[in-house]
Formats: sequence, structure tokens, C-alpha cells
Amino acid sequence: MTNEIPYKIYLNESEMPKQWYNLRADMVNKPAPLLNPGTHKPMTAEELAPVFCEELVKQELDDTTPYFDIPQEILDFYKMFRPSPLVRAYCLEKKLDTPAKIYYKFEGNNTSGSHKLNSAIAQAYYAKKQGLKGVTTETGAGQWGTALSMACSYFDLDCKVYMVKVSYEQKPFRREVMRTYGATVTPSPSTTTEIGKKILAEHPGTTGSLGCAISEAVEVATTTEGYRYVLGSVLNQVLLHQSVIGLETKAALDKYGITPDIIIGCAGGGSNLGGLIAPFMGEKIKNGANYRIIAVEPASCPSFTRGKYAYDFCDTGMVCPLAKMYTLGSGFIPAPNHAGGLRYHGMSSTLSQLYDDGLMEAVSVPQTEVFEAAEQFARVEGILPAPESSHAIKVAIDEALKCKETGEEKTIVFGLTGTGYFDLVAYEKFHDGKMDDYIPTDEELAASIAKLPVVE
Amino acid sequence: MTNEIPYKIYLNESEMPKQWYNLRADMVNKPAPLLNPGTHKPMTAEELAPVFCEELVKQELDDTTPYFDIPQEILDFYKMFRPSPLVRAYCLEKKLDTPAKIYYKFEGNNTSGSHKLNSAIAQAYYAKKQGLKGVTTETGAGQWGTALSMACSYFDLDCKVYMVKVSYEQKPFRREVMRTYGATVTPSPSTTTEIGKKILAEHPGTTGSLGCAISEAVEVATTTEGYRYVLGSVLNQVLLHQSVIGLETKAALDKYGITPDIIIGCAGGGSNLGGLIAPFMGEKIKNGANYRIIAVEPASCPSFTRGKYAYDFCDTGMVCPLAKMYTLGSGFIPAPNHAGGLRYHGMSSTLSQLYDDGLMEAVSVPQTEVFEAAEQFARVEGILPAPESSHAIKVAIDEALKCKETGEEKTIVFGLTGTGYFDLVAYEKFHDGKMDDYIPTDEELAASIAKLPVVE
Repeated sequence: MTNEIPYKIYLNESEMPKQWYNLRADMVNKPAPLLNPGTHKPMTAEELAPVFCEELVKQELDDTTPYFDIPQEILDFYKMFRPSPLVRAYCLEKKLDTPAKIYYKFEGNNTSGSHKLNSAIAQAYYAKKQGLKGVTTETGAGQWGTALSMACSYFDLDCKVYMVKVSYEQKPFRREVMRTYGATVTPSPSTTTEIGKKILAEHPGTTGSLGCAISEAVEVATTTEGYRYVLGSVLNQVLLHQSVIGLETKAALDKYGITPDIIIGCAGGGSNLGGLIAPFMGEKIKNGANYRIIAVEPASCPSFTRGKYAYDFCDTGMVCPLAKMYTLGSGFIPAPNHAGGLRYHGMSSTLSQLYDDGLMEAVSVPQTEVFEAAEQFARVEGILPAPESSHAIKVAIDEALKCKETGEEKTIVFGLTGTGYFDLVAYEKFHDGKMDDYIPTDEELAASIAKLPVVE
Repeated sequence: MTNEIPYKIYLNESEMPKQWYNLRADMVNKPAPLLNPGTHKPMTAEELAPVFCEELVKQELDDTTPYFDIPQEILDFYKMFRPSPLVRAYCLEKKLDTPAKIYYKFEGNNTSGSHKLNSAIAQAYYAKKQGLKGVTTETGAGQWGTALSMACSYFDLDCKVYMVKVSYEQKPFRREVMRTYGATVTPSPSTTTEIGKKILAEHPGTTGSLGCAISEAVEVATTTEGYRYVLGSVLNQVLLHQSVIGLETKAALDKYGITPDIIIGCAGGGSNLGGLIAPFMGEKIKNGANYRIIAVEPASCPSFTRGKYAYDFCDTGMVCPLAKMYTLGSGFIPAPNHAGGLRYHGMSSTLSQLYDDGLMEAVSVPQTEVFEAAEQFARVEGILPAPESSHAIKVAIDEALKCKETGEEKTIVFGLTGTGYFDLVAYEKFHDGKMDDYIPTDEELAASIAKLPVVE
């Protein structure tokens, strides 16, 4: 096989992006602002300062500056695992016998196992720069917690992670990686916070949720001297940092004169998708570029496809600002058999606005089909993918098979956000035929959505 | 930080080696031949044919041809995970405050998690080419079994893995990765073979050993139509395939005009070390190049540093040919608290000869020190290393600290063979202070070595 396009397109270090791209600056309809949960007025920098680092507050609120310089210290850290390869999926194309050209941006080649490290190192850097002692956060499946513990270790910051209890128990290895990097990991809900105690009193047998762990982490950050809270997805600042994924992808494609037809990413809170599509969406808005952009979410947690676009609480304890987003209601918890991440009840405000504006599509897929796609991909492309990433694989394969029917040579790019090395319990369930697809009923969703706060 | 040398040196795909290098062709004292265990005469190609694939037998016996073309099918597969990066350990250097320049060749960026895939795909290819139905093998910690299952899946070959029982039970996730790639995994010793039944009858509570799993895998290969046995280390053919590591390393160094002073690799059976050092050792033999080459082995399984250079059985069941090697005796089993791989009782015949000729050094290190080095490395370089690879890290750090004392700016290159994502149980033990260092006594080793076969 001789090809002009290599299997893996690596940029040189000198070609790595030196700035993050702030898509909001180019959006016609800006994402709705965060609101103070008491006054329902837009949150000010002063109000956000007790929760978030100063520089990150600036980034969070800025919807006009198109580019932010990436500090040199962060660029140096990026060089340990970036640029990440843009891989031409020759073997998958051959297996599918499709005329489509498939590329994936692989963000899993680092110990955190995912793209989360891109924002973790940025947030840790700004915390350190502000002279803080440490940060708090929540983690579900553990990718974000792992990434943050690596970043904090690098900058010698303390790191307190509240890990959703069910994951804490089922994923001891992630916990152990975090310990290797010196983080403290507490199963949530816990008795270390007031909100944790309250939730435990109300729901004694609860296995926890992201919304609940967020509440605990925020409480600790706002009541401990020298600490702030950091978040791995959903927020504008996180999408800003993750734009490095899309910028590298675009640079690699441009280098070989490739224009994608379809761009696909999995979507939980939206950090990977928002980062991957940023420069492409920017072109679409500014120049009317003709990209089809598809968000893929689990059928068991379908915020885009079955949620409501409205203001909602970001956390179960209702201590965070309100965000306007596609949401299933802050009390929504995916069925226990839901294996991977992508379990947040809402979706990034930026992506929600773009979706509402008709600039992107969304589709939901059941998890057994996701694992079938994952196994098929692993066998030909060699990489064992994370369940989250496999949502994008599933739809990329579907689109490639459509091309096979029509004979179209479309170029498909998808985000392979991470590896599944810590998800083998889920793979085992799948192999043993013990995995099923729970899809919430209309009644369940309606009940959850009915509890949204009333915001004028 | 601006540097001429990038953090990661990647070759282009066009710069990847097209041939493997057969170091034996340049050795003055050739490695001793395999012997027939009955006649004690050198094994012929005909005698080896029932066990190994034809092409691999040729490679095993050939100590005169310096280069073998890498078939295009294998090159195509290599492109999915090669070239692997040669990383400049800037962050580790800074942390150690050493004038030494440290580089590591990172082979862990693939789902098998190690360098084993380099030989697995070659062996699977030749099995397929010969029209076989499948292959059998043994695996200890599971890296080799995982790699072989990936390779077999790619070529649609059946793969039967005998996994050392203690690993089978303690590393269910490795087993699950193998299942994802369609392999059958049996804990060894098992009742599926005559030799397994015999060993179980003699040692009912045994947790297994590599030597025992080899015996079972060979028995199945030689008694099943259309099957052959493949091995992940020790053999000449494996070192040949693994030379791709050293060739890439040398090409990357040459590209930037770098000459290493010290080259360090961990050594169990010797596949990674033999591959990494191949072109450097070739220069040393042919041109008197002045490289210090250091093999690092676990203090709990010290074949180089405390073994005897003699003919020994390769397996517990004594069904394999005899090999001349540094050995602790085929009955030797490392203490149960030994956490990682590197547990084979003998060492590659090629490396044994080179060591006996004084062309390389060897050192053994206790495992708690290895894990301390692993954690130190992980925190600054971001990669969570395999326990095996961490043996090389430990000695690289020691050498870099010596440079700090002397002020010498030595260039140190070591092999980072893989990641520790499936070794978190061992990391947990280390964090919990439950890891200790069992070093075999002189009496124990003498008793084991006393059982070596008598070969004139």
C-alpha cells in the first residue's frame, strides 16, 4: 500500500498552535450568560472569583476576544503529549470496503488516557500563577480526575478529587493512578461536606452523580483558604483550551490539502466536541463553509436529542450558577447499567446555542451498538477505544457505510478522545452478553425536566 | 524553553526501517545453537519445523545474513503504531538537576502497551503466510499475549494463550483485552494438556510459571493440526524483529547528530534490550564504538548477575530444545511478591554471549526502588511506566545523578518498553507500603542451578 497521506499525520512542534481559539468571538448568537441562582442576573467576575481562578473567570466571560495566547509553561507541558496524531483509518476503510476517507484525531496517547489533560494543565497553571495552594474537582469515570492530578503534580499543587461513588468502587485503578500523582480521592457523596451529608441523609443508598460531586467540590473550594474549583467540561473556558484539538486537526488537514465533509464527536458536557469543531465551526459561521457537524450522545443520557433548551442548575446541590443549556434536569441520573462517561445532565452553553441555531446535528446511540463499533475498530485499527469515544466511532462507521451505498468519497473526521484501558469491566459485560440498553422513557424525562428552575 | 532538540523526535514514515538487523551476523563469537534435548546435537530446521513456522525457523538459525527485508504487510501494520517517539526527558533532567541528557524510546503507545507487538505481528504474518489456522503461546503479565491477540486478529488467525495462573487471576483486564481481540485464554497449568495435568498432580497448589505455560503451549501446537507455537522473547528471531526499536532510535539520534554514551534496557528474556541495542552493539563490534550498554534485571530474578552460563531447558516440562544462556535453572520461580514481568529463568542466547564476551554490563535492582523511580518519572514525564520498563528508568536516573556529581554531560538513552495501566495492583501495593524486596539466597539459587542438564 503506497499512499500520499501517511497513516499518521504529526505536526512538528514548531507547527503546534500558540493560541487557543475562542469560538464565541465569532458566534452571531452568543451563548447565554451564567446567571446568579439567587438574583437570576448574569454572574459578574466578582461573583465568580470565590469559585474559579481569576484568569479563568476572564476566559469564561470573554465572548469577544478571538484568540488567547497559550502561556509558554503550558506549551512546554503540551509538548510531552502533543501534537497528537491525526490518523488515517486505512485499515477501517478497507474493512468496511467504503470509498469514504476516514480520519481520527487521537487524544489518548497520554497517561490520563484522554483529551482532558489539555484543559487540566491550563487550569492548574492559572491556579499556580494565582498563588493558590490547590484545587478541587469532581470526576465521574475518572478521566478528568486523572488528568487534573497529573497537571497538579506537575505544578506542585494540592488536588482534591470528589469521585462519583459508583466509579470510585468500580474503577479502583483510576483512583490508583490519581494517587500515583499525589491526589486525594474521596467517594461522593461523602460526609466531608455539608451538601454531601444532606444528600446522604435524603438518599442513603445513592451511588452518586456528577451533579452531586460538583456540589461537594465547589463547597470545599469556597470554604477552604487558598483553593478554587476547576471543572473538566461544559464551561466556556474548557472549550477554549480544548480548541487545541481542532486547531491541530485543521492544521494537519490543511498541510495535505484535505477538506472534511463530516466532523463527528461524542458529547457529554461538550469539551471534546467543542474543541474539535471550533475552527471548523468558525469557518462555517464566518465563510459559510459547508461542514456537516454531528454530536453523538448516549441514548441513556440524551440531552441534545431529548432535552430542553433552558436555564438549569449545573449541580445537584444547586450551589453553582445557572446555565442555559440543553438539559435533562439537574436531578437526572443515567441508568446504572450505563457504562461510560457522557453522563452529565446538561450540555455546554456554547454548543447548545450552536445546536439551537441549526449549525450542527445531534444523534443518540444505544450502548451495545457503541461497544460493537468499539470492538470492530479495535480489531482493525489496533487501539482499544474508550466507551465515550466509541460513540463517535459508531456514527463514523454508519456514515462510511452510507458512502458505500451511494459511492460517495466523503471525508469523515472524528475525535477519538481516549483509550478504554480502564473500562475493561464494561468490555467484559459486553463480551459476556450482560450489557443492555436502557433508554429513559418520555415520562421519566418529562418528570425530570419539570423540575427546571423558572427563569424569566 | 527553546531547544534545538524537540521533546519528541518522530521519524517520518518514509524514514522507518525497511529491514530488520540481524546482530548475530556481525558477532565474532556466535550465540550457541539450540540443542536437541535427546541427542544434544544442534537442532535442525527439520526438527524445529513442527514447533515453529518455516520462515521463523530460517530466521532463528541464520547467523550470517545481516539484514532481512520487512514484508510490506508488516510495514503497513507497523505504521499504525510506529515510528515510536524518541523522547528527550527535559522534565526529568530538570527535576534531577543533572547535566546529563536523557532520551527514552517509548514503545508503549499501542493497545498491547509494549514493544511486544513488533514481533507479534511478524510471527502472525509468517504463520498466516504458511497457511496455518492458528498459533499458541504463553504469557506472564499479559503483554505478549495481548500483543499476539492483536496481531492474530489483524490476520484472522486463531490465537490460544496459556496465561500463568497467578496473572490470569490478578490481571483480569489483560485477559479481557485479549478477549476483545478474539483470543482464547487458559490459566496455566491447566487440565487441557498432558504436561499441565502432570504438573498439577505434582504441585497441586501451584500458581504457575512461564516455563510451565510454555510447555503447555508447545504441546498444543505440536499436537493440533495447522498450529505452531510462537514466543515473545528469548529467541533469536524475536530479537531480530525487535531490532526495529534500535534502528529507529539510531536513525532519530543520527538525524540530530547525537551520540549516546550509555544505553540502558530492562532485561527479562532480552527481547527489548536485544532490539534496542542491536545497531549500537553492531557498531561496537565492527568499529569499536564506545557505548556503555547496561542490562537491568530484577533482584528477584537475576539471571545475568547471579545465574550460570550453561545449557538449560527453556521450559519446565523439558519439551523444548536446550539453549545456552545465563540461567537460574528451569525450575526457578520468582517470589510471589515479584510484581512485574522479567520473570523468565534464562536470558536470550545472543545477549548471554555478548555479556560473556564483556561487551555489555548487567545490574540488578530491588523492586521498591524500581517503583520509586517509576513514580518519580510518572510525575514529571507524564507517562505511567510499566514495572518492567521502570527497571531501566531506575538505572538511567542513577547514571544521571552520577553525572550531577561529576558534572559530566553524558547522553543517556534508555528503553521505555511500555505503560503500567494494567499494573495498578502493584502500584497500589507500593503506595500502601505493602511491597517488599525478596532477593533469593545463594543457597536457593545454587539448588536450582544444580539441576541444570549435563551437556558435553
